[in-house]
This record gives sequence, C-alpha cells and structure tokens, in this order.
Amino acid sequence: MPELRKDPLIGRWVIIATERARRPVDFIAPHDEPLPQADCPFCEGKEQDTPKEIMAIRANGSQADRPGWSVRVIPSIKPVLRIEGQLGRRAKGMFDLMDGIGAHEVIVETPHHIANAADLAVEQIHLSLQASMKRIADLQGDPRFRYGLWFKNYGQTAGAGRIQHARSQLIATPVTPLRVKEELLGARRYFEDKERCLLCDLLSQEQASPLRVVINSTHIVALCPFASRFPFELWILPKRHACDIGAITPQELEDLASVMKQVWTRLKSVLDDPPYNCLLHTAPFRHGRGKAGYWKTIEDDYHWHIELIPRLTRVAGFEWGSGFYINPTPPEEAAQYLRETPVEVTSDKT
Amino acid sequence: MPELRKDPLIGRWVIIATERARRPVDFIAPHDEPLPQADCPFCEGKEQDTPKEIMAIRANGSQADRPGWSVRVIPSIKPVLRIEGQLGRRAKGMFDLMDGIGAHEVIVETPHHIANAADLAVEQIHLSLQASMKRIADLQGDPRFRYGLWFKNYGQTAGAGRIQHARSQLIATPVTPLRVKEELLGARRYFEDKERCLLCDLLSQEQASPLRVVINSTHIVALCPFASRFPFELWILPKRHACDIGAITPQELEDLASVMKQVWTRLKSVLDDPPYNCLLHTAPFRHGRGKAGYWKTIEDDYHWHIELIPRLTRVAGFEWGSGFYINPTPPEEAAQYLRETPVEVTSDKT
Repeated sequence: MPELRKDPLIGRWVIIATERARRPVDFIAPHDEPLPQADCPFCEGKEQDTPKEIMAIRANGSQADRPGWSVRVIPSIKPVLRIEGQLGRRAKGMFDLMDGIGAHEVIVETPHHIANAADLAVEQIHLSLQASMKRIADLQGDPRFRYGLWFKNYGQTAGAGRIQHARSQLIATPVTPLRVKEELLGARRYFEDKERCLLCDLLSQEQASPLRVVINSTHIVALCPFASRFPFELWILPKRHACDIGAITPQELEDLASVMKQVWTRLKSVLDDPPYNCLLHTAPFRHGRGKAGYWKTIEDDYHWHIELIPRLTRVAGFEWGSGFYINPTPPEEAAQYLRETPVEVTSDKT
Repeated sequence: MPELRKDPLIGRWVIIATERARRPVDFIAPHDEPLPQADCPFCEGKEQDTPKEIMAIRANGSQADRPGWSVRVIPSIKPVLRIEGQLGRRAKGMFDLMDGIGAHEVIVETPHHIANAADLAVEQIHLSLQASMKRIADLQGDPRFRYGLWFKNYGQTAGAGRIQHARSQLIATPVTPLRVKEELLGARRYFEDKERCLLCDLLSQEQASPLRVVINSTHIVALCPFASRFPFELWILPKRHACDIGAITPQELEDLASVMKQVWTRLKSVLDDPPYNCLLHTAPFRHGRGKAGYWKTIEDDYHWHIELIPRLTRVAGFEWGSGFYINPTPPEEAAQYLRETPVEVTSDKT
C-alpha cells in the first residue's frame, strides 16, 4: 500500500510508493556532454576568461585575477539579475513588479578541474563554505536585498551546464522566495502552538532512531526527510537552533564541510555519480521588513538547513502543477543505502 | 533590464528576462522514442490489453471492452494510489500520514493512434472533456476523496512515457494539493480586501488589451499570465465566474473544447510540436471539510482554470528549491507568437 505523508513544515502531501520501490540501480544516470577542460574558464590560469574577482582566498602575495588562489568568487557570466540600479517597485494595473536588481555570484570551489565537490578535500570544501559565508554577510549589507539564495548545481541534468568544474552560486534577491516564505509560515504556526521550533523537535525525534538518519555528526545531522518529494532527497541540519546560517560557529562550519563531503561521497557511490542540487534555506536578511517583531519571531521558530535533491526522476505535469509529489523510493530505504555503502572518506584527497 | 513580476494569486515572484529573450527557435525539442503502434494498448481493438473500462462513449449497441467507442475511461495500469481501502489517517511521532487511497483513471481521447490532442477534431476533444466531467462528478460522490486532479501529459519530456496515444488522466486524492491550497488562500485574501474575485478582475484587465491574450472566445479566454514561470505558459479561463468546473454549461464546454484545440494547434505550430502539461485547477470536492462556511467562501472567491506548461527548459536547482522561477521569454512575446502564427484550425480533422 502506498503511503501519503505530510511534510510538517509546509504541509505538502507526498505519495510514497512503498511497494515495488525503486532501488539505486533503477535510476539511469543521464549522459553529460562536457566541454573540454581547455575551454573551462574556472581553472587556475584562466582568470582572464572571467569577470574580475569579487574576493578570493589566496596565497600571501598573489595578485587578484592571477593564479595563486584556492577559492575564487566572481560575478556570474550570465547573471539572472542586474547589480546596478534601484528596485523601482511599481504597479501595472493590478499587477506588481520591480526591476530585476540583484547580485549573482559564482563561488569557484577549487583551482583544479574537478567536477564533483565529493572529490574535493574536506579542507577545500571548508574554504569554499567560508567564502560563501563571507559573501552572504557582505550582500546582507545592501539594503535593496532581502534574501541570499545559496545553491549548487552538479551535472547537466541539474542545470550545471557543460562546464565540469565544482562551484556554487549565490543570488541575492529583493524578495523572499515563495518556498522560504512558506517555511517561515509553517515554522511560525508550529511555534505558536507548541512554543518549540519544529525542526528542533524533528531533530530530536529523528536522532532517537536510525531509520532516516544518514550521518549524525558532532554538530550536524544529515537525514532523508519523512515526506521526501524525491528519491534520495536529503536535509542537512545544525543541531544547535539558529535561524540564520550567518550565526554558524567555526566548529559547526568545519563539521558542515565534513558532513557535506560525506553526503556527496555517499551519493556518488550509491547512485553512480548522480546529478544533484543543493540549496540553502536560511532566514531572510535582517532589514527592509516593515513589521516590528518580525525578526524576533523568526529567530525563535525558524531553523536553517540545506536541502539536497538528486535529479533522478523526470517530474511529471501532475507534480508540477499541483505541488503533489510521487516518490518511488521510501526515505527509510534511501537512508539505509546511503548509510551502508562502504565509502572511504579521506580528508587529504586533492 | 530583467523584470521581477509577482503572481497575484499566490504571491510567487518570477524573473522575466526581457533582454536577449528566447524565441521559439531557441528551444530545442527533445527527441521521443515512441513504442511501435502495434504495442499501443489504447487503440481500438486492443481493449483486452487494458483493465476493464470504467465508462465509455460508445456507438449504440456496442459492448463494453470491445471496439465501437469514441472515448474510453479505464483505471491506470500503474496507479499511484489504490482505490480499495480506508484512509487510516494517523500519526507517526510528530508526523502525519495515511494510506495511499485514491482513484487513478486514464481518459483515452480517441480510438485512433493519434499522439497530440491538437490533431483531434473539436468534436472529439469535446467528447473527451464530457467524459472527464462525468468522471469528476462521479468521484466527487466518494466521501474519502477531497480533490479531483485532471491533467494531461504530452510527449516523453512531459511524462507521457513511450505510448503516443492522446489521453488525459484523473487522480482523486484524499487531500487537497498544496498548489491549489495556496491558490484558495490567495483568492480569499484578495476577496477579503476587494470583495471581488481576483481572476474575474484579471480577466477584465487582460481583455482590455491584446498584450497577453491569445484567444478571446465567447465563453473562454486563453492568455499568457503576467508572471509566467515558464516560456509560453498559458492559462485557459472561463469568463463566467465559477469556482468549480462541474458548474460548466454545455455551451461553455463546447467553447472550451474549441479553445483547447486552438491552443494546442498554435503551440504545435509555433514551437514545433513541443511536449506539454495541462492541469485543471478547480475547487476541492464539496464534502469532508469541517469548517462551516468554507464552501461558501470558495464559491465567491475562487475561479477554476486550466494551466498549460510547455516543457521547453530544464528547471535548475535554484528554481526547484526556492519556488523562484526564471523565465527567458516574456509572456507578451509568447502571446504575440501564439496569436500571429498562421494556423488552420479545422473542426473536421480526424
């Protein structure tokens, strides 16, 4: 009997196929057509092929837009929003619109031509997360922006294009994305009822049983959520309550890097190097909101986390249009595959 | 300058790329690998290859599960929900779940091996819509179900699989899908403020200018919505306010068939036979809701419509996880292409 499961955060129902569940071998990986390495603009030595760097983590003495960096942040070559200008919020009849102002940056996670972040050393992942945190903090200072959307596409099916060089992206937007708004609302509703954070409750319940937990590290937990929309969907959460990833401690960030490395490595092993998307859900920026007390509430009830979605299935029209998903792999089975795969996670690779 | 546009119904912001907009020729149609016609279970004469029919529109005297039908409704061969059993709503710790009970039916829209509903006669489309209406009305009588999700996938990319035979599907679910819930909420908010239906207001504003209108027929309008998430996205709406498609008049249904034929034909012509999804958004079933007055409100503020999404672009992780879409083709340009393409919409084809 299939199960209908409800996501506790935003109230989305998901159909979980419990019989004839699809196993890892049932998912056929799509075939990428990579650009030759010689054409990669993100490799060390190709700094002139990209816009000027916004920041970089560099060896002492090395010059901007020259070799010598370990992580480099540049404006996107194809920005979806423009950095210059004012918002111009206005109406067109009954409709609302504004100019497409925002920042769109690319965090190049390694100077070497390595496609999957799973193949980076933990230290390298740590550096790239540090750079991302710095950029989020910096964009937070711009009063035009309300949200910093950090994400990572790996593989062509996941939208990474033909350049196979590990990177993440950061888009600062003048509006809070709908999905985050829904989560803020769901978290608040739960808090109003229970006076506790929903994801804190979820963490304590999930850690009590290994059923859906993949990694339980010192500060960070990776699990397959109860109402997973997609096969092998993962959430990565901090144990310590914080609405904003900006509040992360150095120890937590180090642990996050190590958990991400493990998660990516286990996914690569279980699903034969699948395409995936990672997306940070964190609190909106702390200004530009009219309502008093708005931020106080979010601090109590929201809990930042990263969502990781392997792109294994074709999403049908029914799911698109209804927000009602069918997941052919129960999260308990996905978690077991991910936990039990024998992988060696070394910290000194590359 | 790109534009940020807000969907008035659910408050979703969309980035519309107004420069370097993608035109129809920029979208590469994916390649389908159809099953041979001989293997199609939906053709007339292959009735034994499917489950027993639930209903059919048949020539007088022809027997069930035999040739002689023009539209045939059967249970899905791969149902995502099971029809037998009780819901068993229950908790698992903090989580909510129930058994995956529901109906999943396939409306075979023609006895002939024709893939695209654009190539059916208007009369044939009309018959298949009539059959769909009958099935929705019938499932509405089952107290376990709250919603009837009618949709249509065309092309492999859109989830139609390898069988190229025109059909739509109907899934009755014990829960209201999230997207519909959000629309109900947005429609109510607007009504509380204005004491008018949002989509009635939208229709009167859009009809005053040809900018985004593709077809303005006697009872039905097809338009590209202001905050289209996808290139060439279309909404098909009735001019007369009704929350429930079940309230459609015979004249309106006839007009709907003719508008759908035109829309599909124009899409096929402009975008070289693209894959697409159609999805009906209508009011939930009229029972099983605890709150008094719930239905009265929906009657005033909700307005049924069909959403049509051509599957032309790969959706990136950023859009998945944030609900924040990037649309490379402004709806005004899409509407113009669709309006101006020279197509001959005959009513006697096939």
